[in-house]
Amino acid sequence: MLPDFSKAPDGLLPAVAQDVRTQEVLMVAWVNREAFEHAIKTGRAAYWSRSRKSLWVKGDTSGHLQKLREIWVDCDGDSILYRVEQTGAACHDGYFSCFYRRLENGAWSVEREKVAEKPS
Amino acid sequence: MLPDFSKAPDGLLPAVAQDVRTQEVLMVAWVNREAFEHAIKTGRAAYWSRSRKSLWVKGDTSGHLQKLREIWVDCDGDSILYRVEQTGAACHDGYFSCFYRRLENGAWSVEREKVAEKPS
Repeated sequence: MLPDFSKAPDGLLPAVAQDVRTQEVLMVAWVNREAFEHAIKTGRAAYWSRSRKSLWVKGDTSGHLQKLREIWVDCDGDSILYRVEQTGAACHDGYFSCFYRRLENGAWSVEREKVAEKPS
Repeated sequence: MLPDFSKAPDGLLPAVAQDVRTQEVLMVAWVNREAFEHAIKTGRAAYWSRSRKSLWVKGDTSGHLQKLREIWVDCDGDSILYRVEQTGAACHDGYFSCFYRRLENGAWSVEREKVAEKPS
């Protein structure tokens, strides 16, 4: 059965969200069986919030939702790729992608522009 | 200090590898401080193998290496994005990306062609 949630002691597998239009890697978060099944049922990217210990449907509070276009699984069945249409900003810092800092000559440099002020 | 390896109890953060040419998400693996510093020093994607409990320089045994072009960190400092030039196949099943199966109408479908037979 894929994905194989039993591979992680806590049942949480890493999930990558990638925007289908820009191809940007947006974020990495955690998915358990409940979140995975919720995502399939609703067509919206869902995760498990480790801090809140609850289902986290991306954008439910912020409106910055991820419409789920494709779901992929890796060879070992222990990582998930959500290909999504991101609304607004994936990042609660207001950037389209959470990966907005790049290592340049030994220092982290902000390489993206903010697209939103509202936290997601 | 970014990335913040202290955020994971075992010091291992998830790292996504993405090909800079095709923009495909290639794989998700784990990086600790040693692997991260090795990657920066050598310009090749390096990970920590949880199964072998050792530094894993991608392609060292298979030749299917990842030339590191960019390193990004996420907002929380607990995920890493390696943007690479993948040689051959990232996946030990012989596919360019480990994400070669897509969920279609409730079943996993192989949506990619093999590009190599040699395990990586």
